[in-house]
Amino acid sequence: MNPSSHLEVTVGEIGEKAVIAEIVGAAPSTRNGDDAAVLSHASPNSRTVATTDMLIEGRHFRRDWSTPEEVGKKAITANFADIEAMGARPISALLALAAPPDLPVEFLRRLAMGIDESVSEFAAELVGGDVTQSERLVVSVAAIGELGGNRPALTLDRARAGQKVVANGLIGHSAAGYALLERFGRAGVPEHLDPLVEAHCAPTLSAGRGVVARSAGVTSMTDNSDGLVVDLGAIARASQVGIDLEKDAIAPGPLLIEAGELLDVDPWSWVLSGGEDHTLLATTSGPAPSGFRTIGKVTRSREVTVAGEKPAHVTGWESF
Amino acid sequence: MNPSSHLEVTVGEIGEKAVIAEIVGAAPSTRNGDDAAVLSHASPNSRTVATTDMLIEGRHFRRDWSTPEEVGKKAITANFADIEAMGARPISALLALAAPPDLPVEFLRRLAMGIDESVSEFAAELVGGDVTQSERLVVSVAAIGELGGNRPALTLDRARAGQKVVANGLIGHSAAGYALLERFGRAGVPEHLDPLVEAHCAPTLSAGRGVVARSAGVTSMTDNSDGLVVDLGAIARASQVGIDLEKDAIAPGPLLIEAGELLDVDPWSWVLSGGEDHTLLATTSGPAPSGFRTIGKVTRSREVTVAGEKPAHVTGWESF
Repeated sequence: MNPSSHLEVTVGEIGEKAVIAEIVGAAPSTRNGDDAAVLSHASPNSRTVATTDMLIEGRHFRRDWSTPEEVGKKAITANFADIEAMGARPISALLALAAPPDLPVEFLRRLAMGIDESVSEFAAELVGGDVTQSERLVVSVAAIGELGGNRPALTLDRARAGQKVVANGLIGHSAAGYALLERFGRAGVPEHLDPLVEAHCAPTLSAGRGVVARSAGVTSMTDNSDGLVVDLGAIARASQVGIDLEKDAIAPGPLLIEAGELLDVDPWSWVLSGGEDHTLLATTSGPAPSGFRTIGKVTRSREVTVAGEKPAHVTGWESF
Repeated sequence: MNPSSHLEVTVGEIGEKAVIAEIVGAAPSTRNGDDAAVLSHASPNSRTVATTDMLIEGRHFRRDWSTPEEVGKKAITANFADIEAMGARPISALLALAAPPDLPVEFLRRLAMGIDESVSEFAAELVGGDVTQSERLVVSVAAIGELGGNRPALTLDRARAGQKVVANGLIGHSAAGYALLERFGRAGVPEHLDPLVEAHCAPTLSAGRGVVARSAGVTSMTDNSDGLVVDLGAIARASQVGIDLEKDAIAPGPLLIEAGELLDVDPWSWVLSGGEDHTLLATTSGPAPSGFRTIGKVTRSREVTVAGEKPAHVTGWESF
C-alpha cells in the first residue's frame, strides 16, 4: 500500500477492531487489552491521582491548524499538567475517542503516535480506551498519576502571605498562537512566529517538574489552563490570600510583542487572560525550585494584582 | 424559581462555573475541586485499575428514550462493569462532559444525580471532571478501582478446559429493550415490557460481584458489553480454549419471548449477539460464586458453541 492510497482509507472502512489495533500499535502497552488496565504502585506508600480533560474538534483544535500528532500531544499535556500540578508523577493515560467514519486511518495513527511520544516523555503509557463514532472528533483523555510518600499533594489552598509565586514554562504563547491561526491559518503565519503556533497546537510540559516542586517544599500549585489571572485567582481564593505579580517578570517577550503588533492586539491580554499554556504556577517559602522563576508574591489583599494594580485583562477561558 | 421556569434555563445561560457547581452539588465529593483528585489506597498491598467508556447522544442514548438519570447511570455501569470484571472494587469516577449550550440545566443536574446514585451503590465517588461545549451531548467517564491483595486480576486469558462458565445478571435484555424503543418509542412500549427498556436505558450491576468472584477463585472474567458470543469469544481467544454454552441456561425467558413475538424477531439474537447488558461472565474450577449461575463449560475446541453447535447469531456491537 503506498502512502497516498493509504491516506484515503477511513476508520469506517476498517472497522472498530482495526481502529483499536492501529491505536494500540502506535501507542503500545502490555497493560492494554483487557476490560481495564491494572497499574502497580512503584512506591509502597503512595496515593493515586486522577484527572480528565476533553478536546473537541472545532473548539480545542482544528484539523486544518493542527497536525494529528499535535492533537494527541495537546490532549496528553492538558491532562498530565493537572497531575504534575498536584506534585504527582503521571503514569498512565486512557483515551476515549469518538471519530467520524470518514476520518482517515492515517490521522488516527498519527494522533496515537503523538500520544505515545508525549506519554513516553513521562515514562507513562496509554493503558486503555474506548472507540466510538460521532460527527465531530472528540479526544477525551483521563490521566492517572502516582503521588509517593506522606507529604500532602500540592493543592490550591496552601499559599500563605509572604511566599513567592513561581512559574515553569511559557505564559501567553498559546493564546497568541491561537490569535495568529485565526487571522492567517497555519500556512499563513510568518515562520519566525511558529513557536507561538506550536505553543497553541501542542503545548509542552517539562516532565517531572511537579515532583521537583513538591520535593522542594512548594506549598500550592496549579497549571495555567484558563488564564494566568483566573488560575492564580483560584489559588488566591482557595488559600484566602492575594497574589501580586511582578510586571517585569511576566512582561510580553519579543515574540508576543511582534505578534501583538501584527494583529493590533495588546500582548498583555494573552499573558494575563490567555490559557492553555499548561505552565506550572506555584507558591513557595523557599527559593524557586529548579526550572522555576519568580513572578510575584503572595499578599494579604485577596486579589490578583500586577505591580499592585488591578490587571487590565482578567477574563479567562469559558466553556459556554 | 418554580420548577417549570427552571426547566428552561440552559447551560449556555448559566456558564461553565455554574455548570460545574450543579454537577458537584448533585454528585459531591471532598476529593473534587483541585487540578486532580487524590485517592488513598484502602489496603496497603493494592493495585489501581483504570478504564474509560464514552456515551454519545444519538448513538448510545437518546434524550427522548432515556431520562437524564438513566444516562448517568448507564455511563457509570458501563465503566464500573469493566472494573468489576477485573475482580476489583470501583472507587472513583471522572466525568468529561460536552454539552450543547441549549441543554437544560435541569437535564445536567438529573444526569449528575443519576451518576451519584450509581456511584453511591458502590461506595464510590465522582471525584473530578471536565466540562466543554459541543453540538451533541457526550458523556465520557473514566473509572478507577482498587485491586487488593496479591492474587492476579481477573484477566481474559486464564480460562482452562473443564472449567465452568458462570454469569451474574441478565443476558439479551438491553438489546431487546433497544429493539422495542426503536419500534415504539419510550411511551409506546407495552408497560409489562418496561424491564427490557430499563435494561437498555440504565443497565444495572450488582456492586461487589467482581470482588466476590475473585475471592471465590474465578479464573477469568469479562462483562457482556459487545454480545455474549463476542465477549466469551474474547476469553476463548485470549485463553486459547473454546466455550460451550448450555442451551437451557441461556434460553430466552418469557419477557424476551414476548418481545420477540411482538417485533417478529428471534429472541436468541438478543441473547447471543445483543450487548450492553454488562453482565459479568466468568470461568471457574469451583462452584459458581455467590450470585452467579452456570451457563456453560470451557472446552478445547477454540470456538464458542451452543450445545455443541455453531451459534445462529454471532455478530456483536461494532462502533463503525
